[in-house]
Amino acid sequence: MENTVIYGRNAVIEALESGSREFNKILVSQKSGADVKIEKIKELAKEQGIIFQFVAMQKLNQLVPDGRHQGVIALISPVKYTDLDDFIEKIGGNIVILDGNEDSHKVGAIIRTAVCAGIKGIILPSRRGVLINSTVEKTSAGAVNHISIIKVNSLTNAVQKLKENNYWVIASDHHAKDNYYDIDYSNMNFALIMGAEHAGISRSLLKLADFTVKIPMLTNFNSLNVSNAAAIILFESVRGRERKK
Amino acid sequence: MENTVIYGRNAVIEALESGSREFNKILVSQKSGADVKIEKIKELAKEQGIIFQFVAMQKLNQLVPDGRHQGVIALISPVKYTDLDDFIEKIGGNIVILDGNEDSHKVGAIIRTAVCAGIKGIILPSRRGVLINSTVEKTSAGAVNHISIIKVNSLTNAVQKLKENNYWVIASDHHAKDNYYDIDYSNMNFALIMGAEHAGISRSLLKLADFTVKIPMLTNFNSLNVSNAAAIILFESVRGRERKK
Repeated sequence: MENTVIYGRNAVIEALESGSREFNKILVSQKSGADVKIEKIKELAKEQGIIFQFVAMQKLNQLVPDGRHQGVIALISPVKYTDLDDFIEKIGGNIVILDGNEDSHKVGAIIRTAVCAGIKGIILPSRRGVLINSTVEKTSAGAVNHISIIKVNSLTNAVQKLKENNYWVIASDHHAKDNYYDIDYSNMNFALIMGAEHAGISRSLLKLADFTVKIPMLTNFNSLNVSNAAAIILFESVRGRERKK
Repeated sequence: MENTVIYGRNAVIEALESGSREFNKILVSQKSGADVKIEKIKELAKEQGIIFQFVAMQKLNQLVPDGRHQGVIALISPVKYTDLDDFIEKIGGNIVILDGNEDSHKVGAIIRTAVCAGIKGIILPSRRGVLINSTVEKTSAGAVNHISIIKVNSLTNAVQKLKENNYWVIASDHHAKDNYYDIDYSNMNFALIMGAEHAGISRSLLKLADFTVKIPMLTNFNSLNVSNAAAIILFESVRGRERKK
């Protein structure tokens, strides 16, 4: 199973009240009627800024097959998320932002390479795309424990906050005019946005970018795997810094 | 299922005699006794240079669950392999050599990126590591159809043949002194060897390399995914050529 789960109304309430677990999302059956406990879960989730999604019963049954979920399943992260403000204030360093990547293997691979390239934070949106689950943890080869993972409800707000804090925002987009090696990465704090493989980066984020870069291809087969594209750009930033030594 | 299979003694003999299918390997039960048809399969496979492996019955039952395999399963490739001599003589261009990579997803990702980087051939060893199966085809996003896939029984012989034909052999090895960006890739035909993720490149191949290069890391977390490592080196070769234009 990709996700560690907590299920059943009482178990989810307990976990929310204990504050000891790191939630990705709470999934609730669309068929849940007016129910005191479901209302309580909703309220606690809202207080703690946890995404609460109504889903089909089928989806819940896929996650917990024998129906013991009582219409509520919480997806739990294997790692602790870092708050963006805390990251900026106390940690700092270059960041990769993943906009809507749904593939756990590729997210894991990107995090692994990001750590090797000296990146200090990964920003993931809490609604679109995968969060940290056991597949991401495994394919990252444990790298999720060597970097700050920042979960945000709005990527747009996060990017704006980064810009206010002197980050340069770089978007990888195959329509860009500049090549990824035309930038000098060595004299700035940067946040690199990688989009989903087919959809690319959402328009609202693209507009906020200070630089938009592409990876030039030697063939018409214009289709890099997003984790390889991230690796190419991130190691260009390493290369620049290493050469300046 | 990762592999297209043909199973049963008669079906495998027919496929071998027809010459219309591309074999990866033929798997035969260790318990197969003296049997005229198995002997015939062995003989035909030998004539055609196809690897013939004895495996436990359990392995065969995993591939064809209901036991109808009669102790013989042929693994079939979804693509046609190219002969190394034909490649050198009629096609030519830069090559990636995969030494013992067992992960279909990573092999597929490397082939996808190799096509984007203008690489013309991939060399895979017929014994160690994966050959082209449906998972490799899928994760390559169809790139397996845009590059020559060369299957060889000996990587050492293949590398020696490439050197005799004016290829420069580059080995990616994290013990190397030189960095991958210290080479000028633009004025040579190269063959880049990527090893398996933990084992690395076998000693006999490392000895044959003209250049050994590493990717410098910014952290002690020294563990790049092999497909990302290949992407970083291959796009350095693209970068060099693009900049010289």
